[in-house]
Amino acid sequence: MGAEQHGQQPYEVVELIRTKRDGGRLGDAEIDWVIDAYTAGLVADEQMSALAMAIFFRGLDPAELARWTAAMIDSGERLDFSSLSRPTADKHSTGGVGDKITLPLAPLVAACGVAVPQLSGRGLGHTGGTLDKLESIPGWRARLSNAEMLRQLEEVGAVICAAGSGLAPADAKLYALRDVTATVESIPLIASSIMSKKIAEGTGALVLDVKVGTGAFMKTQESAAELARTMVGLGTDAGVTTVALLTDMSTPLGLTVGNALEVVESVEVLAGGGPSDVVELTVALARELVAAAGRDDHDPAEVLASGKAMDAWRAMIEAQDGDADAALPTARETDVITANQDGVLISLDAFKVGVAAWRLGAGRARKDQPVQAAAGIELHAKPGDQLQAGNPIMTLHTDTPERFERARESLTGAYQVGAEAAPPPPLIIERIG
Amino acid sequence: MGAEQHGQQPYEVVELIRTKRDGGRLGDAEIDWVIDAYTAGLVADEQMSALAMAIFFRGLDPAELARWTAAMIDSGERLDFSSLSRPTADKHSTGGVGDKITLPLAPLVAACGVAVPQLSGRGLGHTGGTLDKLESIPGWRARLSNAEMLRQLEEVGAVICAAGSGLAPADAKLYALRDVTATVESIPLIASSIMSKKIAEGTGALVLDVKVGTGAFMKTQESAAELARTMVGLGTDAGVTTVALLTDMSTPLGLTVGNALEVVESVEVLAGGGPSDVVELTVALARELVAAAGRDDHDPAEVLASGKAMDAWRAMIEAQDGDADAALPTARETDVITANQDGVLISLDAFKVGVAAWRLGAGRARKDQPVQAAAGIELHAKPGDQLQAGNPIMTLHTDTPERFERARESLTGAYQVGAEAAPPPPLIIERIG
Repeated sequence: MGAEQHGQQPYEVVELIRTKRDGGRLGDAEIDWVIDAYTAGLVADEQMSALAMAIFFRGLDPAELARWTAAMIDSGERLDFSSLSRPTADKHSTGGVGDKITLPLAPLVAACGVAVPQLSGRGLGHTGGTLDKLESIPGWRARLSNAEMLRQLEEVGAVICAAGSGLAPADAKLYALRDVTATVESIPLIASSIMSKKIAEGTGALVLDVKVGTGAFMKTQESAAELARTMVGLGTDAGVTTVALLTDMSTPLGLTVGNALEVVESVEVLAGGGPSDVVELTVALARELVAAAGRDDHDPAEVLASGKAMDAWRAMIEAQDGDADAALPTARETDVITANQDGVLISLDAFKVGVAAWRLGAGRARKDQPVQAAAGIELHAKPGDQLQAGNPIMTLHTDTPERFERARESLTGAYQVGAEAAPPPPLIIERIG
Repeated sequence: MGAEQHGQQPYEVVELIRTKRDGGRLGDAEIDWVIDAYTAGLVADEQMSALAMAIFFRGLDPAELARWTAAMIDSGERLDFSSLSRPTADKHSTGGVGDKITLPLAPLVAACGVAVPQLSGRGLGHTGGTLDKLESIPGWRARLSNAEMLRQLEEVGAVICAAGSGLAPADAKLYALRDVTATVESIPLIASSIMSKKIAEGTGALVLDVKVGTGAFMKTQESAAELARTMVGLGTDAGVTTVALLTDMSTPLGLTVGNALEVVESVEVLAGGGPSDVVELTVALARELVAAAGRDDHDPAEVLASGKAMDAWRAMIEAQDGDADAALPTARETDVITANQDGVLISLDAFKVGVAAWRLGAGRARKDQPVQAAAGIELHAKPGDQLQAGNPIMTLHTDTPERFERARESLTGAYQVGAEAAPPPPLIIERIG
């Protein structure tokens, strides 16, 4: 019936959905067409969501996935950094709670002689967004033209800015659809979404920080490893040197969750201090980026200690009109949660802390909502730390104290104080290269 | 995130889709809500299609399916035939090629003292529609008010008319969506679609003719039997006496496929003649309807032979302004396909013959297209018949001879002439009650 109905189209989308639904594979030309036609509005949302659900159940084989990703890249522009005098390397995290690593990492890697084009997004739900964090710095602007980005990469070496809408527009449209149709949680669809943007961005090397645990998208090491292998395969096949680290996200990273709070902690790391887990992961990822870019004549730990990373940070913030010396906003109200018994902190659940910070105003539920720069959570203890009854475990920050109640609700069961804690899991679980 | 985003809705549709996708079950209130909200436009098409695809893969358990069907019934009006002096019984066929059985069946069963409220549809694709067939009779009208339908049921005993849009509007909306999203082929969705309309229609008894074979929706006996059992269960649970016959649709039923052509053949059956397979199935289904309605003091074979069924046919057509004596339209052009060797007709593929008749103009590809009353195919041989080279196998009829070429294309491999034919499968394969 299809050919009769839609003679003007080379393919009948119902047949493509049926093929995938029944376990068949889509051909190259079919994939190119369906991505193109969806972006152009010729394939309806209800057809694409049915196809996405069929892919959730049936998957995409490696050749289908590579073509799907390529078609999304081809839906928009590709950046070109080949005119730069330095090699490029970029990092992508699948998202975690307290994950401010991009902030110290980009200037640190730039100070090692690599250009870091870090195109970032805003937060949605319980994980924060890098742009939201930097926007707590007075004057700083997220949006740069391609020419400004190139100039800053050449002169400063690091840029963290908003990804333009020209990169992989098919992915932007498809992601918004998947979000409302319960088709986000598909490894090929996640992998192609991330990698289409990163490959279109034009980076020469890419290091993936794939989070595992309650606060992460991937709850198990197996699923995280599969996602990591899939993305490394896609990047490598597209000519991008790609490695992945699987890292723990069962407990928040560092001692702060929130926008300005995380900037302050990042600056502490750049100044040679900061929480040991943030320092460890920043240096580990920096080593991977520097090696992938072919600049392993530089040791990130030494460069961090030298103060050159802090210099690059200041230059990066100021190049985007930010005041690197300005005092950051602080919250109008705080509320301290204390231990009700002596003991050791056994657990501190990343997801629940993330939801609490979000409810305090650090995050948004809809794309167009504002966030509070100063809202969030300051942690006073991490799992394994000894506490006495009455000791503070965390401080909640917000400008709108009516939010404390729901934030506290989401912290029910978020932490446990007991006699003995299991040894913490390693921060860096596995390397996939 | 859901509760924050859609505080005004009792459920978050993404969570319902995710539950079904991950193999969970939907609760009664969730099913009521999602059907209601979809009908009202609060659940988007792209969400419902994703849910339908998840149901394709995960199914609905008997309790979910019963509630899903009930929610679709509750989306619209229910007819009430309790004021009639006769018991009611209805037949539903899952659709076949040359399946004109409703035409002789409804008056035959009416002549046995049963009221037959046969709410029918139009054809789409390779299977014909009962209303399209009757509309080849000059003057006949498909659309009746509920009052007209009731009066005709009381006075004539049989009515074949268009189902009003007030019955199960949720199903109408969902079916249109499934049709464009490759989510038609799901047994619980098919069963609930058919049964919601039939239960809302208010019949006391229902006989299902579930077709099996190339020309049918269900290609295997196993899938047809599963669909039949599912529908019989739904009907029985809703208080409707329901039985199903599984019948062969590997070859067309009777010797005609098309609108006026099938009316002519139906009248032959009512006159005591007609092809033996059409007579056999008409009488078998009539026996089931009469028994289900509690009127098995009547023998349909005797009633057919008595001429009373023909009287009921004339009354039924005339009650809807049709001229039962009018000559029916004949096609402007014909084209005869002949055997190119001596032998026996081994096979005659129902699907291919159905597609050819459709391409000749008997069917439509889109809802709003007209059909040709006279277009179709007349068969001169059925599997098992002896042929000599040059003998006609079938005659193609159309008003638009440019259609012959594509119709002949679709008949490639549709029939085989050879040395010996396997014995034909039984017409009535199984009874499920």
